[in-house]
Amino acid sequence: MTPNIGVLLSGCGHLDGSEIHEAVLTLLALDEQRAHAVCIAPHAPQAAVVDHRTGAPVPGAERDMLTEAARIARGRVRDLASVRADELDGVVLPGGFGAAKNLCDFAAKGAAATVRPDVARLLRELHAARKPIGALCIAPAVVAAVFGRSEHPVLTVGAAGQAAQALEAMGARHQVRPVTECTVDTDHRIVTAPAYMYDARIADVAAGVRKLVAAVLELVHRRAAGGAA
Amino acid sequence: MTPNIGVLLSGCGHLDGSEIHEAVLTLLALDEQRAHAVCIAPHAPQAAVVDHRTGAPVPGAERDMLTEAARIARGRVRDLASVRADELDGVVLPGGFGAAKNLCDFAAKGAAATVRPDVARLLRELHAARKPIGALCIAPAVVAAVFGRSEHPVLTVGAAGQAAQALEAMGARHQVRPVTECTVDTDHRIVTAPAYMYDARIADVAAGVRKLVAAVLELVHRRAAGGAA
Repeated sequence: MTPNIGVLLSGCGHLDGSEIHEAVLTLLALDEQRAHAVCIAPHAPQAAVVDHRTGAPVPGAERDMLTEAARIARGRVRDLASVRADELDGVVLPGGFGAAKNLCDFAAKGAAATVRPDVARLLRELHAARKPIGALCIAPAVVAAVFGRSEHPVLTVGAAGQAAQALEAMGARHQVRPVTECTVDTDHRIVTAPAYMYDARIADVAAGVRKLVAAVLELVHRRAAGGAA
Repeated sequence: MTPNIGVLLSGCGHLDGSEIHEAVLTLLALDEQRAHAVCIAPHAPQAAVVDHRTGAPVPGAERDMLTEAARIARGRVRDLASVRADELDGVVLPGGFGAAKNLCDFAAKGAAATVRPDVARLLRELHAARKPIGALCIAPAVVAAVFGRSEHPVLTVGAAGQAAQALEAMGARHQVRPVTECTVDTDHRIVTAPAYMYDARIADVAAGVRKLVAAVLELVHRRAAGGAA
Protein backbone atom coordinates (compact mmCIF):
# COMPACT_ATOMS: atom_id res chain seq x y z
CA MET A 1 0.00 0.00 0.00
CA THR A 2 1.08 3.59 -0.62
CA PRO A 3 0.13 5.64 2.44
CA ASN A 4 -1.77 8.88 1.87
CA ILE A 5 -0.32 11.57 4.10
CA GLY A 6 -2.00 14.95 4.42
CA VAL A 7 0.24 18.03 4.35
CA LEU A 8 -1.76 20.73 6.09
CA LEU A 9 -0.75 24.16 4.77
CA SER A 10 -1.71 27.65 5.95
CA GLY A 11 -0.52 29.92 3.13
CA CYS A 12 2.83 30.39 1.37
CA GLY A 13 5.63 32.10 3.27
CA HIS A 14 6.97 31.73 6.80
CA LEU A 15 5.86 35.13 8.12
CA ASP A 16 2.15 34.81 7.26
CA GLY A 17 1.63 31.24 6.04
CA SER A 18 3.46 27.92 5.76
CA GLU A 19 7.23 27.89 5.92
CA ILE A 20 8.02 27.12 2.27
CA HIS A 21 11.22 25.10 2.77
CA GLU A 22 9.59 22.93 5.44
CA ALA A 23 6.57 22.31 3.20
CA VAL A 24 8.67 21.42 0.13
CA LEU A 25 11.09 19.27 2.14
CA THR A 26 8.08 17.41 3.58
CA LEU A 27 6.76 16.74 0.06
CA LEU A 28 10.26 15.59 -0.98
CA ALA A 29 10.68 13.27 2.02
CA LEU A 30 7.22 11.77 1.52
CA ASP A 31 7.96 11.05 -2.15
CA GLU A 32 11.44 9.68 -1.40
CA GLN A 33 9.91 7.39 1.21
CA ARG A 34 7.14 6.21 -1.13
CA ALA A 35 4.18 7.94 0.42
CA HIS A 36 1.57 9.99 -1.43
CA ALA A 37 1.22 13.61 -0.29
CA VAL A 38 -2.25 15.17 -0.11
CA CYS A 39 -1.87 18.93 0.22
CA ILE A 40 -4.69 20.52 2.21
CA ALA A 41 -5.48 24.04 3.43
CA PRO A 42 -8.43 25.90 4.93
CA HIS A 43 -10.32 28.03 2.41
CA ALA A 44 -10.22 31.16 4.56
CA PRO A 45 -8.29 34.43 4.78
CA GLN A 46 -4.83 34.53 6.36
CA ALA A 47 -4.68 36.46 9.64
CA ALA A 48 -2.25 38.87 7.95
CA VAL A 49 -0.16 39.48 4.87
CA VAL A 50 3.48 40.25 5.67
CA ASP A 51 6.14 41.70 3.37
CA HIS A 52 8.82 39.01 3.64
CA ARG A 53 11.55 41.42 2.59
CA THR A 54 10.91 44.00 5.32
CA GLY A 55 9.04 41.85 7.85
CA ALA A 56 6.30 44.49 8.05
CA PRO A 57 2.57 43.74 7.79
CA VAL A 58 0.91 44.99 4.59
CA PRO A 59 -2.11 47.04 5.75
CA GLY A 60 -5.36 46.14 3.99
CA ALA A 61 -3.86 43.25 2.03
CA GLU A 62 -5.77 39.96 1.98
CA ARG A 63 -4.66 36.51 0.89
CA ASP A 64 -6.50 33.21 1.18
CA MET A 65 -4.74 30.23 2.78
CA LEU A 66 -5.97 27.72 0.18
CA THR A 67 -5.17 29.94 -2.80
CA GLU A 68 -1.66 30.71 -1.54
CA ALA A 69 -1.02 27.09 -0.51
CA ALA A 70 -1.75 26.16 -4.14
CA ARG A 71 1.58 27.84 -5.02
CA ILE A 72 3.46 25.30 -2.92
CA ALA A 73 1.18 22.44 -4.06
CA ARG A 74 1.44 23.32 -7.77
CA GLY A 75 -2.35 23.63 -7.89
CA ARG A 76 -3.07 20.24 -6.34
CA VAL A 77 -4.52 21.26 -3.00
CA ARG A 78 -7.69 20.16 -1.24
CA ASP A 79 -10.07 22.42 0.68
CA LEU A 80 -9.82 21.24 4.30
CA ALA A 81 -13.62 21.35 4.59
CA SER A 82 -13.88 18.45 2.13
CA VAL A 83 -11.17 16.22 3.63
CA ARG A 84 -12.25 13.24 5.78
CA ALA A 85 -9.88 11.40 8.11
CA ASP A 86 -10.64 8.07 6.42
CA GLU A 87 -8.99 9.38 3.22
CA LEU A 88 -5.68 9.80 5.04
CA ASP A 89 -3.22 7.54 6.85
CA GLY A 90 -1.65 10.43 8.73
CA VAL A 91 -0.92 14.15 8.47
CA VAL A 92 2.08 16.48 8.69
CA LEU A 93 1.82 20.17 9.61
CA PRO A 94 4.72 22.29 8.33
CA GLY A 95 5.54 25.34 10.44
CA GLY A 96 5.76 29.03 9.71
CA PHE A 97 3.74 31.74 11.41
CA GLY A 98 0.72 30.54 9.47
CA ALA A 99 0.56 27.57 11.87
CA ALA A 100 0.57 29.96 14.84
CA LYS A 101 -1.56 32.76 13.36
CA ASN A 102 -3.91 31.10 10.84
CA LEU A 103 -4.44 27.50 12.03
CA CYS A 104 -4.61 28.67 15.65
CA ASP A 105 -4.00 31.90 17.54
CA PHE A 106 -0.92 30.79 19.48
CA ALA A 107 1.13 33.76 18.21
CA ALA A 108 -1.27 36.16 19.93
CA LYS A 109 -2.52 34.13 22.89
CA GLY A 110 0.28 31.70 23.79
CA ALA A 111 -0.89 28.95 26.16
CA ALA A 112 -4.49 30.24 25.91
CA ALA A 113 -4.53 29.49 22.17
CA THR A 114 -7.57 28.06 20.44
CA VAL A 115 -7.46 26.11 17.18
CA ARG A 116 -9.62 26.61 14.06
CA PRO A 117 -12.54 24.16 14.41
CA ASP A 118 -11.89 22.58 10.98
CA VAL A 119 -8.25 21.94 11.88
CA ALA A 120 -9.11 20.56 15.32
CA ARG A 121 -11.80 18.34 13.75
CA LEU A 122 -9.36 16.69 11.31
CA LEU A 123 -6.67 16.21 13.95
CA ARG A 124 -9.13 14.71 16.44
CA GLU A 125 -10.57 12.34 13.82
CA LEU A 126 -7.14 11.14 12.73
CA HIS A 127 -6.00 10.74 16.32
CA ALA A 128 -9.15 8.81 17.27
CA ALA A 129 -8.40 6.43 14.38
CA ARG A 130 -4.86 5.95 15.77
CA LYS A 131 -3.32 7.66 12.74
CA PRO A 132 -0.08 9.61 13.29
CA ILE A 133 0.29 13.39 13.36
CA GLY A 134 3.58 15.10 12.50
CA ALA A 135 4.32 18.77 13.22
CA LEU A 136 7.32 20.93 12.33
CA CYS A 137 8.75 24.11 13.81
CA ILE A 138 6.00 26.01 15.70
CA ALA A 139 3.18 23.72 14.44
CA PRO A 140 3.47 21.57 17.61
CA ALA A 141 1.62 24.49 19.23
CA VAL A 142 -1.46 23.45 17.22
CA VAL A 143 -1.06 19.87 18.47
CA ALA A 144 -0.58 21.04 22.06
CA ALA A 145 -3.67 23.25 21.87
CA VAL A 146 -5.78 20.27 20.74
CA PHE A 147 -4.30 17.42 22.80
CA GLY A 148 -2.06 18.98 25.46
CA ARG A 149 -4.44 19.08 28.42
CA SER A 150 -6.12 15.74 27.73
CA GLU A 151 -3.13 13.63 26.68
CA HIS A 152 0.09 15.36 27.72
CA PRO A 153 2.04 14.35 24.59
CA VAL A 154 5.82 14.69 24.39
CA LEU A 155 6.66 17.38 21.82
CA THR A 156 9.62 19.45 20.70
CA VAL A 157 9.96 22.98 19.40
CA GLY A 158 13.75 22.73 19.62
CA ALA A 159 15.45 24.61 22.46
CA ALA A 160 14.09 25.47 25.88
CA GLY A 161 12.53 28.94 25.87
CA GLN A 162 9.30 30.83 25.61
CA ALA A 163 7.61 28.57 23.04
CA ALA A 164 8.59 25.42 24.94
CA GLN A 165 7.27 26.92 28.18
CA ALA A 166 3.96 27.79 26.52
CA LEU A 167 3.62 24.22 25.25
CA GLU A 168 4.20 22.93 28.78
CA ALA A 169 1.62 25.39 30.10
CA MET A 170 -0.79 23.76 27.62
CA GLY A 171 -0.14 20.36 29.17
CA ALA A 172 2.47 18.98 26.79
CA ARG A 173 5.86 17.70 27.93
CA HIS A 174 8.71 19.42 26.07
CA GLN A 175 11.85 17.66 24.89
CA VAL A 176 14.89 19.68 23.76
CA ARG A 177 16.04 18.47 20.34
CA PRO A 178 18.60 19.64 17.74
CA VAL A 179 17.50 20.68 14.24
CA THR A 180 18.55 17.39 12.66
CA GLU A 181 16.42 15.24 14.99
CA CYS A 182 12.78 14.67 15.85
CA THR A 183 10.79 13.63 18.91
CA VAL A 184 8.61 10.54 18.60
CA ASP A 185 5.76 10.06 21.08
CA THR A 186 4.88 6.49 20.16
CA ASP A 187 2.04 6.22 22.68
CA HIS A 188 0.24 9.23 21.24
CA ARG A 189 1.46 8.72 17.66
CA ILE A 190 2.75 12.31 17.48
CA VAL A 191 6.08 13.22 15.85
CA THR A 192 7.61 16.69 16.04
CA ALA A 193 10.82 18.31 14.74
CA PRO A 194 12.26 21.80 15.35
CA ALA A 195 13.20 22.73 11.75
CA TYR A 196 13.36 26.55 11.44
CA MET A 197 12.73 27.12 15.15
CA TYR A 198 16.50 27.27 14.81
CA ASP A 199 18.30 29.71 12.48
CA ALA A 200 19.39 26.62 10.59
CA ARG A 201 20.95 25.50 7.34
CA ILE A 202 18.42 24.05 4.91
CA ALA A 203 20.35 20.73 4.69
CA ASP A 204 20.03 20.31 8.47
CA VAL A 205 16.31 21.15 8.31
CA ALA A 206 15.97 18.53 5.54
CA ALA A 207 17.63 15.92 7.78
CA GLY A 208 15.14 16.57 10.59
CA VAL A 209 12.19 16.54 8.20
CA ARG A 210 13.31 13.21 6.69
CA LYS A 211 13.49 11.67 10.17
CA LEU A 212 10.05 13.04 11.08
CA VAL A 213 8.54 11.62 7.88
CA ALA A 214 10.23 8.25 8.48
CA ALA A 215 8.83 8.14 12.02
CA VAL A 216 5.32 9.08 10.82
CA LEU A 217 5.43 6.34 8.15
CA GLU A 218 6.75 3.82 10.69
CA LEU A 219 3.67 4.59 12.85
CA VAL A 220 1.44 4.16 9.77
CA HIS A 221 2.97 0.76 9.05
CA ARG A 222 2.72 -0.32 12.70
CA ARG A 223 -0.96 0.57 12.72
CA ALA A 224 -1.52 -1.39 9.49
CA ALA A 225 0.39 -4.38 10.86
CA GLY A 226 -1.56 -4.25 14.12
CA GLY A 227 -4.86 -4.16 12.26
CA ALA A 228 -6.02 -1.20 14.36
CA ALA A 229 -9.19 0.39 13.05
CA MET B 1 36.79 28.27 -0.58
CA THR B 2 33.01 28.19 -0.36
CA PRO B 3 31.61 29.17 -3.76
CA ASN B 4 28.93 31.88 -3.83
CA ILE B 5 26.21 30.84 -6.24
CA GLY B 6 23.44 33.24 -7.18
CA VAL B 7 19.90 31.86 -7.30
CA LEU B 8 18.01 34.22 -9.59
CA LEU B 9 14.31 34.28 -8.65
CA SER B 10 11.34 35.90 -10.39
CA GLY B 11 8.56 35.69 -7.80
CA CYS B 12 7.04 32.85 -5.77
CA GLY B 13 4.86 30.32 -7.60
CA HIS B 14 5.23 28.45 -10.88
CA LEU B 15 2.40 30.19 -12.76
CA ASP B 16 3.59 33.79 -12.26
CA GLY B 17 7.03 33.57 -10.65
CA SER B 18 9.69 31.04 -9.70
CA GLU B 19 8.75 27.38 -9.44
CA ILE B 20 8.90 26.93 -5.66
CA HIS B 21 10.06 23.28 -5.55
CA GLU B 22 12.84 23.96 -8.05
CA ALA B 23 14.00 27.01 -6.08
CA VAL B 24 13.98 25.19 -2.71
CA LEU B 25 15.62 22.07 -4.16
CA THR B 26 18.35 24.30 -5.63
CA LEU B 27 18.96 25.88 -2.21
CA LEU B 28 19.04 22.38 -0.67
CA ALA B 29 21.47 20.99 -3.26
CA LEU B 30 23.77 24.01 -2.93
CA ASP B 31 23.88 23.63 0.86
CA GLU B 32 24.36 19.85 0.67
CA GLN B 33 27.24 20.39 -1.75
CA ARG B 34 28.85 23.08 0.42
CA ALA B 35 28.12 26.13 -1.65
CA HIS B 36 26.64 29.40 -0.38
CA ALA B 37 23.38 30.45 -2.03
CA VAL B 38 22.81 34.14 -2.78
CA CYS B 39 19.14 34.67 -3.58
CA ILE B 40 18.57 37.50 -6.05
CA ALA B 41 15.53 38.97 -7.80
CA PRO B 42 14.68 42.05 -9.85
CA HIS B 43 12.86 44.74 -7.85
CA ALA B 44 10.06 45.13 -10.39
CA PRO B 45 6.44 44.04 -10.85
CA GLN B 46 5.61 40.54 -12.05
CA ALA B 47 4.06 40.42 -15.53
CA ALA B 48 0.94 38.92 -13.95
CA VAL B 49 -0.53 37.49 -10.78
CA VAL B 50 -2.13 34.07 -11.30
CA ASP B 51 -4.47 32.19 -8.96
CA HIS B 52 -2.57 28.92 -8.57
CA ARG B 53 -5.70 27.02 -7.58
CA THR B 54 -7.71 27.93 -10.69
CA GLY B 55 -4.90 28.84 -13.08
CA ALA B 56 -6.68 32.10 -13.92
CA PRO B 57 -5.01 35.53 -13.95
CA VAL B 58 -6.13 37.86 -11.15
CA PRO B 59 -7.17 41.11 -12.86
CA GLY B 60 -5.66 44.25 -11.36
CA ALA B 61 -3.47 42.36 -8.88
CA GLU B 62 0.16 43.38 -8.58
CA ARG B 63 3.08 41.61 -6.93
CA ASP B 64 6.75 42.52 -6.95
CA MET B 65 9.32 39.88 -7.93
CA LEU B 66 11.78 40.79 -5.16
CA THR B 67 9.12 40.98 -2.44
CA GLU B 68 7.60 37.63 -3.42
CA ALA B 69 11.00 35.97 -3.88
CA ALA B 70 11.72 36.94 -0.25
CA ARG B 71 9.14 34.29 0.74
CA ILE B 72 11.31 31.57 -0.79
CA ALA B 73 14.52 33.19 0.47
CA ARG B 74 13.22 33.68 4.05
CA GLY B 75 13.90 37.40 3.71
CA ARG B 76 17.51 37.04 2.58
CA VAL B 77 17.27 38.23 -1.01
CA ARG B 78 19.35 40.76 -2.92
CA ASP B 79 18.00 43.33 -5.35
CA LEU B 80 19.43 42.31 -8.74
CA ALA B 81 20.35 45.95 -9.43
CA SER B 82 22.95 45.82 -6.64
CA VAL B 83 24.55 42.47 -7.54
CA ARG B 84 27.88 42.46 -9.35
CA ALA B 85 29.29 39.44 -11.16
CA ASP B 86 32.49 39.58 -9.12
CA GLU B 87 30.49 38.74 -5.97
CA LEU B 88 29.41 35.42 -7.48
CA ASP B 89 31.12 32.25 -8.70
CA GLY B 90 28.14 31.21 -10.78
CA VAL B 91 24.36 31.46 -10.95
CA VAL B 92 21.36 29.13 -11.18
CA LEU B 93 17.98 30.16 -12.61
CA PRO B 94 15.04 28.08 -11.33
CA GLY B 95 12.13 27.76 -13.73
CA GLY B 96 8.45 28.56 -13.51
CA PHE B 97 6.56 30.94 -15.77
CA GLY B 98 8.31 33.81 -14.00
CA ALA B 99 11.44 32.90 -15.97
CA ALA B 100 9.47 33.08 -19.24
CA LYS B 101 7.18 36.02 -18.38
CA ASN B 102 9.13 38.20 -15.91
CA LEU B 103 12.84 37.66 -16.65
CA CYS B 104 12.15 37.62 -20.39
CA ASP B 105 9.08 37.59 -22.64
CA PHE B 106 9.56 34.10 -24.07
CA ALA B 107 6.04 33.03 -23.02
CA ALA B 108 4.54 35.70 -25.28
CA LYS B 109 7.13 35.99 -28.05
CA GLY B 110 8.83 32.58 -28.33
CA ALA B 111 12.00 32.71 -30.40
CA ALA B 112 11.70 36.51 -30.70
CA ALA B 113 12.02 36.86 -26.91
CA THR B 114 14.01 39.66 -25.32
CA VAL B 115 15.51 39.53 -21.84
CA ARG B 116 15.27 42.14 -19.06
CA PRO B 117 18.42 44.27 -19.38
CA ASP B 118 19.40 43.74 -15.71
CA VAL B 119 19.16 39.95 -16.13
CA ALA B 120 21.07 39.98 -19.43
CA ARG B 121 23.72 42.22 -17.86
CA LEU B 122 24.42 39.80 -14.97
CA LEU B 123 24.45 36.73 -17.23
CA ARG B 124 26.80 38.39 -19.72
CA GLU B 125 29.18 39.56 -16.98
CA LEU B 126 29.31 36.10 -15.39
CA HIS B 127 29.78 34.43 -18.76
CA ALA B 128 32.54 36.84 -19.76
CA ALA B 129 34.32 35.94 -16.50
CA ARG B 130 34.01 32.23 -17.45
CA LYS B 131 31.63 31.58 -14.53
CA PRO B 132 28.98 28.87 -15.00
CA ILE B 133 25.27 29.45 -15.54
CA GLY B 134 22.68 26.83 -14.59
CA ALA B 135 19.04 26.94 -15.71
CA LEU B 136 16.09 24.70 -14.82
CA CYS B 137 12.81 23.92 -16.56
CA ILE B 138 11.92 26.77 -18.96
CA ALA B 139 14.71 29.08 -17.70
CA PRO B 140 17.04 27.84 -20.51
CA ALA B 141 14.90 30.13 -22.69
CA VAL B 142 16.49 33.09 -20.89
CA VAL B 143 19.95 31.66 -21.59
CA ALA B 144 19.07 31.00 -25.25
CA ALA B 145 17.74 34.54 -25.67
CA VAL B 146 21.03 35.97 -24.37
CA PHE B 147 23.61 33.58 -25.86
CA GLY B 148 21.80 31.45 -28.47
CA ARG B 149 22.63 33.36 -31.64
CA SER B 150 26.21 34.23 -30.69
CA GLU B 151 27.35 30.99 -29.05
CA HIS B 152 24.95 28.18 -29.97
CA PRO B 153 25.09 26.48 -26.55
CA VAL B 154 23.75 22.97 -26.01
CA LEU B 155 20.68 23.18 -23.76
CA THR B 156 17.79 21.00 -22.62
CA VAL B 157 14.17 21.72 -21.80
CA GLY B 158 13.43 17.99 -21.59
CA ALA B 159 11.49 16.45 -24.45
CA ALA B 160 11.39 17.51 -28.09
CA GLY B 161 8.47 19.86 -28.72
CA GLN B 162 7.47 23.47 -29.04
CA ALA B 163 9.81 24.87 -26.39
CA ALA B 164 12.77 22.90 -27.71
CA GLN B 165 12.03 24.09 -31.27
CA ALA B 166 11.88 27.71 -30.10
CA LEU B 167 15.26 27.32 -28.39
CA GLU B 168 16.72 25.97 -31.62
CA ALA B 169 15.18 28.88 -33.54
CA MET B 170 17.10 31.12 -31.10
CA GLY B 171 20.37 29.45 -32.12
CA ALA B 172 20.74 26.92 -29.30
CA ARG B 173 21.22 23.21 -29.89
CA HIS B 174 18.62 21.15 -28.00
CA GLN B 175 19.36 17.86 -26.27
CA VAL B 176 16.50 15.60 -25.12
CA ARG B 177 17.00 14.65 -21.46
CA PRO B 178 14.94 12.85 -18.79
CA VAL B 179 13.87 14.64 -15.59
CA THR B 180 16.59 13.01 -13.48
CA GLU B 181 19.44 14.23 -15.70
CA CYS B 182 21.05 17.46 -16.86
CA THR B 183 22.87 18.70 -19.94
CA VAL B 184 26.38 20.07 -19.45
CA ASP B 185 27.84 22.34 -22.12
CA THR B 186 31.41 22.43 -20.83
CA ASP B 187 32.67 24.74 -23.56
CA HIS B 188 30.10 27.41 -22.73
CA ARG B 189 29.89 26.58 -19.01
CA ILE B 190 26.10 26.27 -19.19
CA VAL B 191 24.19 23.52 -17.36
CA THR B 192 20.47 22.88 -17.86
CA ALA B 193 17.95 20.38 -16.47
CA PRO B 194 14.27 19.78 -17.39
CA ALA B 195 12.76 19.58 -13.88
CA TYR B 196 9.03 20.42 -14.07
CA MET B 197 9.04 20.68 -17.87
CA TYR B 198 7.85 17.13 -17.17
CA ASP B 199 4.79 16.33 -15.02
CA ALA B 200 7.28 14.77 -12.62
CA ARG B 201 7.61 13.46 -9.11
CA ILE B 202 9.42 15.84 -6.77
CA ALA B 203 12.07 13.19 -5.91
CA ASP B 204 12.95 12.90 -9.61
CA VAL B 205 13.10 16.68 -9.95
CA ALA B 206 15.41 16.74 -6.91
CA ALA B 207 17.71 14.18 -8.59
CA GLY B 208 18.03 16.36 -11.70
CA VAL B 209 18.59 19.52 -9.65
CA ARG B 210 21.33 17.81 -7.59
CA LYS B 211 23.14 16.80 -10.78
CA LEU B 212 22.81 20.30 -12.22
CA VAL B 213 24.24 21.84 -9.05
CA ALA B 214 27.08 19.30 -9.00
CA ALA B 215 27.92 20.15 -12.62
CA VAL B 216 27.81 23.90 -11.92
CA LEU B 217 30.14 23.48 -8.92
CA GLU B 218 32.49 21.26 -10.94
CA LEU B 219 32.77 24.10 -13.49
CA VAL B 220 33.44 26.55 -10.64
CA HIS B 221 36.24 24.34 -9.31
CA ARG B 222 37.72 23.83 -12.78
CA ARG B 223 37.82 27.57 -13.29
CA ALA B 224 39.51 28.06 -9.90
CA ALA B 225 42.04 25.29 -10.65
CA GLY B 226 42.75 26.79 -14.08
CA GLY B 227 43.31 30.24 -12.59
CA ALA B 228 40.99 31.80 -15.19
CA ALA B 229 40.18 35.42 -14.49
